[in-house]
Amino acid sequence: MGHEKKRGGGTNQTLPTTTTTTTTARRTSIPRGRQISKTFNNLKITILCGFVTILVLRGTIGVGNLTGGSSSSEAKKVIEDTNRIIAEIRSDSDPNEIEVYLNTNDTYSLGPKIKNWNEEREIWLQTHPQFPRTVNNKPRMLLVTGSPPNPCDNPIGDHYLLKSIKNKIDYCRIHGIEIVYNMAHLDRELAGYWAKLPLIRRLMLSHPEVEWIWWMDSDALFTDMVFEIPVRKYDGFNLVVHGYPDLMFNQNSWIALNTGSFLFRNCQWSLDLLDAWAPMGPKGPIRDEAGKVLTANLKGRPAFEADDQSALIYLLISKKDEWMDKVFLENSYYLHGYWAGLVDRYEEMIDKYHPGLGDERWPFVTHFVGCKPCGSYGDYPVERCLSSMERAFNFADNQVLNLYGFRHKALLSPKIKRIRNETVKPLEYVDQFDIRRPPVQKDDKLHNL
Amino acid sequence: MGHEKKRGGGTNQTLPTTTTTTTTARRTSIPRGRQISKTFNNLKITILCGFVTILVLRGTIGVGNLTGGSSSSEAKKVIEDTNRIIAEIRSDSDPNEIEVYLNTNDTYSLGPKIKNWNEEREIWLQTHPQFPRTVNNKPRMLLVTGSPPNPCDNPIGDHYLLKSIKNKIDYCRIHGIEIVYNMAHLDRELAGYWAKLPLIRRLMLSHPEVEWIWWMDSDALFTDMVFEIPVRKYDGFNLVVHGYPDLMFNQNSWIALNTGSFLFRNCQWSLDLLDAWAPMGPKGPIRDEAGKVLTANLKGRPAFEADDQSALIYLLISKKDEWMDKVFLENSYYLHGYWAGLVDRYEEMIDKYHPGLGDERWPFVTHFVGCKPCGSYGDYPVERCLSSMERAFNFADNQVLNLYGFRHKALLSPKIKRIRNETVKPLEYVDQFDIRRPPVQKDDKLHNL
Repeated sequence: MGHEKKRGGGTNQTLPTTTTTTTTARRTSIPRGRQISKTFNNLKITILCGFVTILVLRGTIGVGNLTGGSSSSEAKKVIEDTNRIIAEIRSDSDPNEIEVYLNTNDTYSLGPKIKNWNEEREIWLQTHPQFPRTVNNKPRMLLVTGSPPNPCDNPIGDHYLLKSIKNKIDYCRIHGIEIVYNMAHLDRELAGYWAKLPLIRRLMLSHPEVEWIWWMDSDALFTDMVFEIPVRKYDGFNLVVHGYPDLMFNQNSWIALNTGSFLFRNCQWSLDLLDAWAPMGPKGPIRDEAGKVLTANLKGRPAFEADDQSALIYLLISKKDEWMDKVFLENSYYLHGYWAGLVDRYEEMIDKYHPGLGDERWPFVTHFVGCKPCGSYGDYPVERCLSSMERAFNFADNQVLNLYGFRHKALLSPKIKRIRNETVKPLEYVDQFDIRRPPVQKDDKLHNL
Repeated sequence: MGHEKKRGGGTNQTLPTTTTTTTTARRTSIPRGRQISKTFNNLKITILCGFVTILVLRGTIGVGNLTGGSSSSEAKKVIEDTNRIIAEIRSDSDPNEIEVYLNTNDTYSLGPKIKNWNEEREIWLQTHPQFPRTVNNKPRMLLVTGSPPNPCDNPIGDHYLLKSIKNKIDYCRIHGIEIVYNMAHLDRELAGYWAKLPLIRRLMLSHPEVEWIWWMDSDALFTDMVFEIPVRKYDGFNLVVHGYPDLMFNQNSWIALNTGSFLFRNCQWSLDLLDAWAPMGPKGPIRDEAGKVLTANLKGRPAFEADDQSALIYLLISKKDEWMDKVFLENSYYLHGYWAGLVDRYEEMIDKYHPGLGDERWPFVTHFVGCKPCGSYGDYPVERCLSSMERAFNFADNQVLNLYGFRHKALLSPKIKRIRNETVKPLEYVDQFDIRRPPVQKDDKLHNL
């Protein structure tokens, strides 16, 4: 406001100034220009406030609801309710439970030392003839796989876990192998990739009738439904794992073998190996320190905590004389087949070869190392991984559907098409196309694959 | 601005006014009050604009990125890539492929009429002794289940499909039953709940060694891991389904039986029943019209297209004399157990009873009718369904983990705890706790459940 001159009498009387008049006018009437200016300012602020309000509302309740759409809000509610219950299930941790890590001085053990497992097991088998150690004249085998008990971080992960177990169910049904799908953490210290160790031990001791425990990762798929593991080849061995002697003993490479798919004989030696393998596993300082040792000693290994694969390589290299006489490093077929070099060749394989070979011509197992569909971040582009996994799944599924007269329209297609008409003599096709039966004419049987 | 008086000479000369001075001052100096006011206005607008900018940016690139975090944008990219490849896989339909529905004049057939299946199958079994019709002195059984080939609309759906098949794998391993998990649409006309018909037929004809085909929905879980189907009770029957004669024949109720879990003997009669059952199934006008017939004739049935369950009820009611002599309506145990009345009683069951009963005291199967975790909209609140399914799964899992010395911390918890210490004599527990073996002392074996 202006300066108000003194009114009335006094020594310094001056004429009333316009300022005074202006002040009075401000009280009674605002000059038009300023009125417009003020209105304009207010309008600007009003518009801005309204805009802010819309943005905030949009973020909270959704544009769809502003325009009256209800299906997207219902679906959203389903998702919210789902997330709420999943969060509740996940957060069941005891508030008093503190994560305690073993330190490097502590000794970790998978369990009390068992020293006479071979003898005990043999006696048990003799006294329990109703649980033979062979199935269809083959040593009894138990395939073990699994995944964490909670939903995957990436929703598509659960879908591919489902397809992966279906794939394993198919192979195991055809070949008379039992399956254990583990979704429990048996040992708090040995979590993550190490979880297979306490699991294998527990299963060996609980299933004495089983001759071979076959661990297989959830991201490994069977792609040769005909091929069978040549178990007789391993009569003198107790651990069969895909690997390369040169990479192991000449190069000390951290990928000299792969623990995504391997066989453990159910025997004392295996229990002892598990005991020797486990010490690098307990999470926390032990695993971290062990990781440094492994990185320092294994060629190409990045710096990260100890993983079971590197630890096994290190153990077998450093204690070669103690263990290697019973370890078979298999690479004549793909007990583990690294996916990147295989998935683009499926059409070529169908064209040139047939199931039953198990090697680079028709891989036994295609293993999606590094894809991690269950987690948030894999080592490869998501699209590349998912489309490749879909192709591998369908490539295998075609071999199963063949008995039923179907195949997938394309390797990337979930849809199937008929390749044989229905008949009033279905048993002729059973004899011809069931994998479990010796082929009548090898070419005919496999022609449609 | 003020009014500027004329300067200099002229008739209306007046003293220069303060206004003029003010104007000049405005050009050269704004009165302090108005300066503050103007500044304040500008400040308000600046703040609002800044706020709007932040909101818009937040909506586009995420707060995390504003603060330097990259993980949320990476995760978002993973989701986008995932959705893109899934859309590509889903959209593999042939653009030239037009959905053609059979009309009500057309005749639908599951396949060419087979008339001598019993004889053909018998000859085959005699000539294929390596594929016996019994397993462990029990008729050979094949459990059939499945789900669509595409990811679930609700992401959590795939996780519960995974848990459901793990549950079935456990039961079937313990009881020597093979599993087929179907993810293919064998017949375009009979899609949805009708898909089990062509699937059952195809499996019967492809697996002559199988005596019983057991269809089980993906939303049905085994909750009694000890109970076995008393197959000898059904020696004179070919279809075993959970149902109530009173509801069927006195009330014509549309829920008189449940096709979520039933057994079909592999025989000519079953092929004939499938042929008689299928005609209401082809989607389109046939299924719609059939739905009206069913709603008109079955008590309590809402108006919707024909479903396989209602169609079977209608068939058995209207052709009672033709079929019912070979149909066993079982309700002495829960071959199908409606979940809502069971899931809240699990703790009470654990307290009072033990596995092996299979009935309301310890239900054989808990069936989550109406929950539809794979779809977007079930008939019950999502949280109620998911938490109940989690409880049922863990209730069953406890019975499996018992052999290994573990149980879940609570029925809603994925975490497990040890209930028996490791021992150097593991085979003692095997004898005591393995479900497959007769209990040493019934109370001890089941105590920890």
